[in-house]
Amino acid sequence: MSFRATVLTLYPEMFPGTLGQALAGKALARGDWSLEAVQIRDYATDKHRSVDDTPAGGGAGMVMRADVVAAALDASCDEADPRPRLLMSPRGKPLTQARVRDLAAGPGAVIVCGRFEGVDQRVIDGRGLEEVSIGDYVLSGGEVAAQVLLDAVIRLLPGVMGNAQSGDTESFEGNLLEPPHYPRPAEWEGRTIPEVLTSGNHAKIDEWRREEAEKLTRERRPDLLGG
Amino acid sequence: MSFRATVLTLYPEMFPGTLGQALAGKALARGDWSLEAVQIRDYATDKHRSVDDTPAGGGAGMVMRADVVAAALDASCDEADPRPRLLMSPRGKPLTQARVRDLAAGPGAVIVCGRFEGVDQRVIDGRGLEEVSIGDYVLSGGEVAAQVLLDAVIRLLPGVMGNAQSGDTESFEGNLLEPPHYPRPAEWEGRTIPEVLTSGNHAKIDEWRREEAEKLTRERRPDLLGG
Repeated sequence: MSFRATVLTLYPEMFPGTLGQALAGKALARGDWSLEAVQIRDYATDKHRSVDDTPAGGGAGMVMRADVVAAALDASCDEADPRPRLLMSPRGKPLTQARVRDLAAGPGAVIVCGRFEGVDQRVIDGRGLEEVSIGDYVLSGGEVAAQVLLDAVIRLLPGVMGNAQSGDTESFEGNLLEPPHYPRPAEWEGRTIPEVLTSGNHAKIDEWRREEAEKLTRERRPDLLGG
Repeated sequence: MSFRATVLTLYPEMFPGTLGQALAGKALARGDWSLEAVQIRDYATDKHRSVDDTPAGGGAGMVMRADVVAAALDASCDEADPRPRLLMSPRGKPLTQARVRDLAAGPGAVIVCGRFEGVDQRVIDGRGLEEVSIGDYVLSGGEVAAQVLLDAVIRLLPGVMGNAQSGDTESFEGNLLEPPHYPRPAEWEGRTIPEVLTSGNHAKIDEWRREEAEKLTRERRPDLLGG
């Protein structure tokens, strides 16, 4: 069984988007994962096909309706569906590489893309939606956030990355940022490659990379080191 | 002068992607912002049009070459160009709503989308690239990260959001997550709207929302409250 993604959105034409090309696109074409984009508006019940309404208590902006979102969800996955139900939202738990690995090991994901000011709290509670945030900023909608989440997951699916090793030595694995990289040429604009990297001494190279990664992480992201 | 985005990428066909539709797409059509996607490979110098090479010192994966990325940058913006030069990278400083506001108030951005294991450190140093991360996970490339950054910025540009107020009462403004929202209907699947929201007492409604926002932030994101 390959990874199954179902995305509920008011903009299904945004999909597959970036996921239709390069690494993720090739994996999609090969069937390593599948994607279904569901138009939430198709589940509106009134003649105007409304999907949103003003929030009780007043305030700016519109909110996505519980009944419409629930109908779209119920039509897309039944109670026996083992896939987690996610809602892309800045109120959610921040996405981490550990959560990405976890999702990649599972059967797929049902992802609701929020728009407007948000989604009626009652459908979040009533359908057990897990709010996921990709970062501490506000987007115009959850669609590009869903593409970020899926891109991160898809590259970890079996067979997707050419070199399996690539997944293990990168940022956030081991809580360290990646050390600097220096490919050819040996000199560029007077800037040379650090000598140790061309020494052929692999123990020294590993030690240098570890030190650089630790230094960079201390400088930029002391929070990753805990304490 | 409208906001000018120049994106350097190996996949220019991924743009405008999600940014070509909905809020950002309408703003693009109106000329509230402009987008140029530059194919980095057009600046390769050898007959194979190589853009990457193996890292000195060995290791998995390929690294984007300094000379090729620099040539693409130099052709896209001269030294007098006032726009910040960003590199989407998991090693970067995490993007925040404050940085998004800052970018939205400026002339635009030149954005390099990293691919493979990363970019030669010498072009990061030599061209003063500011590494920006959208979150603590690893993507197959910087393209969808660039779309996230631009989406967040574009919605804050003058004239883009229908209701200017919407920008001020949302998550991360004031370091609080948003309180729950309840639009109509008054009852859905036995779930009602909290009474205070239909009371008409605006002071009480504001107080309730503030309390809910604080409670949610304490529960999910104590880090945002500092201390």
